[in-house]
Amino acid sequence: MISEKMKKMVLNNSEIRKMFEEGNRMSQIYGKDNVYDFSLGNPNVPAPPKVKEAIIEILNEENELTLHGYTNSNSGYMEVRNAVALSLNKRFQTSFSGENIIMTVGAAGGLNVALKVFLNPEDEVIVFSPYFGEYRSYVNNFDGVLVEISPNTENFQPKLDEFEKKITERTKVVIINTPNNPTGVVYSEETIMRIAEILNKKQKEYGSDIYLLSDEPYRELVYDGEKVPYITKYYENTIVAYSYSKSLSLPGERIGYLVVPDEVSECKTVRSAMNVANRILGFVNAPTLQQKVVEKCLEEQTDISYYNRNRETLYKSLTNYGFSCIRPKGAFYLFMKSPIEDEKEFCKEAKELHILLVPGSSFGCAGYVRIAYCVSYEMLLKALPQFKKLAKKYF
Amino acid sequence: MISEKMKKMVLNNSEIRKMFEEGNRMSQIYGKDNVYDFSLGNPNVPAPPKVKEAIIEILNEENELTLHGYTNSNSGYMEVRNAVALSLNKRFQTSFSGENIIMTVGAAGGLNVALKVFLNPEDEVIVFSPYFGEYRSYVNNFDGVLVEISPNTENFQPKLDEFEKKITERTKVVIINTPNNPTGVVYSEETIMRIAEILNKKQKEYGSDIYLLSDEPYRELVYDGEKVPYITKYYENTIVAYSYSKSLSLPGERIGYLVVPDEVSECKTVRSAMNVANRILGFVNAPTLQQKVVEKCLEEQTDISYYNRNRETLYKSLTNYGFSCIRPKGAFYLFMKSPIEDEKEFCKEAKELHILLVPGSSFGCAGYVRIAYCVSYEMLLKALPQFKKLAKKYF
Repeated sequence: MISEKMKKMVLNNSEIRKMFEEGNRMSQIYGKDNVYDFSLGNPNVPAPPKVKEAIIEILNEENELTLHGYTNSNSGYMEVRNAVALSLNKRFQTSFSGENIIMTVGAAGGLNVALKVFLNPEDEVIVFSPYFGEYRSYVNNFDGVLVEISPNTENFQPKLDEFEKKITERTKVVIINTPNNPTGVVYSEETIMRIAEILNKKQKEYGSDIYLLSDEPYRELVYDGEKVPYITKYYENTIVAYSYSKSLSLPGERIGYLVVPDEVSECKTVRSAMNVANRILGFVNAPTLQQKVVEKCLEEQTDISYYNRNRETLYKSLTNYGFSCIRPKGAFYLFMKSPIEDEKEFCKEAKELHILLVPGSSFGCAGYVRIAYCVSYEMLLKALPQFKKLAKKYF
Repeated sequence: MISEKMKKMVLNNSEIRKMFEEGNRMSQIYGKDNVYDFSLGNPNVPAPPKVKEAIIEILNEENELTLHGYTNSNSGYMEVRNAVALSLNKRFQTSFSGENIIMTVGAAGGLNVALKVFLNPEDEVIVFSPYFGEYRSYVNNFDGVLVEISPNTENFQPKLDEFEKKITERTKVVIINTPNNPTGVVYSEETIMRIAEILNKKQKEYGSDIYLLSDEPYRELVYDGEKVPYITKYYENTIVAYSYSKSLSLPGERIGYLVVPDEVSECKTVRSAMNVANRILGFVNAPTLQQKVVEKCLEEQTDISYYNRNRETLYKSLTNYGFSCIRPKGAFYLFMKSPIEDEKEFCKEAKELHILLVPGSSFGCAGYVRIAYCVSYEMLLKALPQFKKLAKKYF
């Protein structure tokens, strides 16, 4: 009795969520300490202490009606939007004002708002494999067509020749995600410049607008002093979708924003439409208390050293055991080559040893698995002998 | 460059929001005290003090990772869902468990989740005029067709003969909203029983499932000891969408839930689909801190006497001045007959006197205006002489 679209969605329910739920089930049987759940990007580093302080300050300072009420605009409190803009300007030498910022229910909310605004049915959205599998559902929400660029397994930078060939007059949006989920790769400045060049050329060729939608929940999670180019500076029709889920460890609170620079074509119409979309999709506005929290925590950072220790330990150990994987430069994922072609079978073998991984085919890249290392260091250490056992089955 | 659907949406942007934004503009010119803004359902009664206490308790008691993290299920914390179920059982003699409850981003989020799950393109959704105008957008989000039942201006109970005639084999959902926005009318038990009877008959006739989607943000806001029947007890295929926006004065925080009783046909599939829809529409989960707040505030109530004083004062004064309006039994709206046929023109006249009202045509009922009296009593008193001046133009 449910809709045809939903029937398919329920059948193809997220592998990530399935694994995560399997982890909870196994924990009840074997005990939480004996299950090594690397399935979900749920941060293990707590929110900075300032978050708690900020909430208490806000409760004591703010008028309750304004604090918990509908915001004047569906795009959020203007003072929060101004503060976000100023903080971006300081960090990236941009020149945004509050008008350029739309507060959203996380990046997932922001991406849906943006796609609602841009997509006519059958419009094409290009993604570079491997990509966050949820994009498939988001594009499907608005009857768009997902066009995948095949993975470049050498270094997981996007394949730009194939990209250029696959752009058509129906291409409306290109989604990038750097630092990348699931590979941890940061797209180089050269990559970004080439993408911009190709898009500008194609926009001219087709007389169309092609929006580059940059999904950036992992922007702050980088290692080895890696730099992540700020995309709006490279390409005019850029929309940024940001989330505080990882940078402030608030994934459950659903708080993020969209950036619509003045350079975006018909930016005012786009912003009005996003304001309306935020409302009619049922978000209405980003949760108000969390908007105020963000305003007070713009200078806060998560403890990147915690994730870095996990990254170093895991990468060194896995490669020692004989696995091949790309050394991640950002985010908290490690993308490992499955020692057998059928990585789903490999995930089953790992599960026998109580290790939960997500198959790469969920990200449009079969033959690999994603290991989310945003876990406790103790659990990671305890999992290593299990990974070693797993390796011995293959090498 | 925005999508065709959004172009229309931006043009027909909510009259409520337009008026509310106009109010903010006028406040800047004439001063906040000289603008009588009755446009938006933004509660003027602050959240119960327990909300603040609960937040501080939660911050002190809970593990931060669990508190701000993704919930195990996209439907929310099981302990919160259990507590909501128990509280409903106590109040309405139902027999729900946590499995029957799905925490959502307000009722707007819940309604979108439900419609996503049920609607195929061209499926029909019946609404009784006057109805909350956002339903139009929500149904449009999933390419459904909105079918309006014309208003019964005698007492604003739904016209059931017309309802019965307009049900077709494509009817998938019927939305009711009682206590009603914009009329403040509570549908009688007899009305609910007749609706159930008609739906059962039509389900049988067409061999279809027709879901009764009960939008209940105003359930707790009733006057004169009025009883609001709990709909799941009258009709099996009922889905309830609830929000704490009005009952706890938390509209900005986006917290509510859906109820899917076991009696709903294929209830397990429906619930799984809603769990997935919550995720893929970009909500992911209802804001986690507010889920915990709700758990601690299930026994809390808003100060209904405040709204009641506004209701009594406004109703008595307006009828004294010569206006006709229906005496509201619930919610915080008063639906007043426009003294001239073109109620938009009347709203303009009111605006000249700095009174902001919403035209009834936004609710599918031209010739009337909605007055949201969830305002401060002082402002309401100050507005009365202006209403009197307005009346003198017509009577």
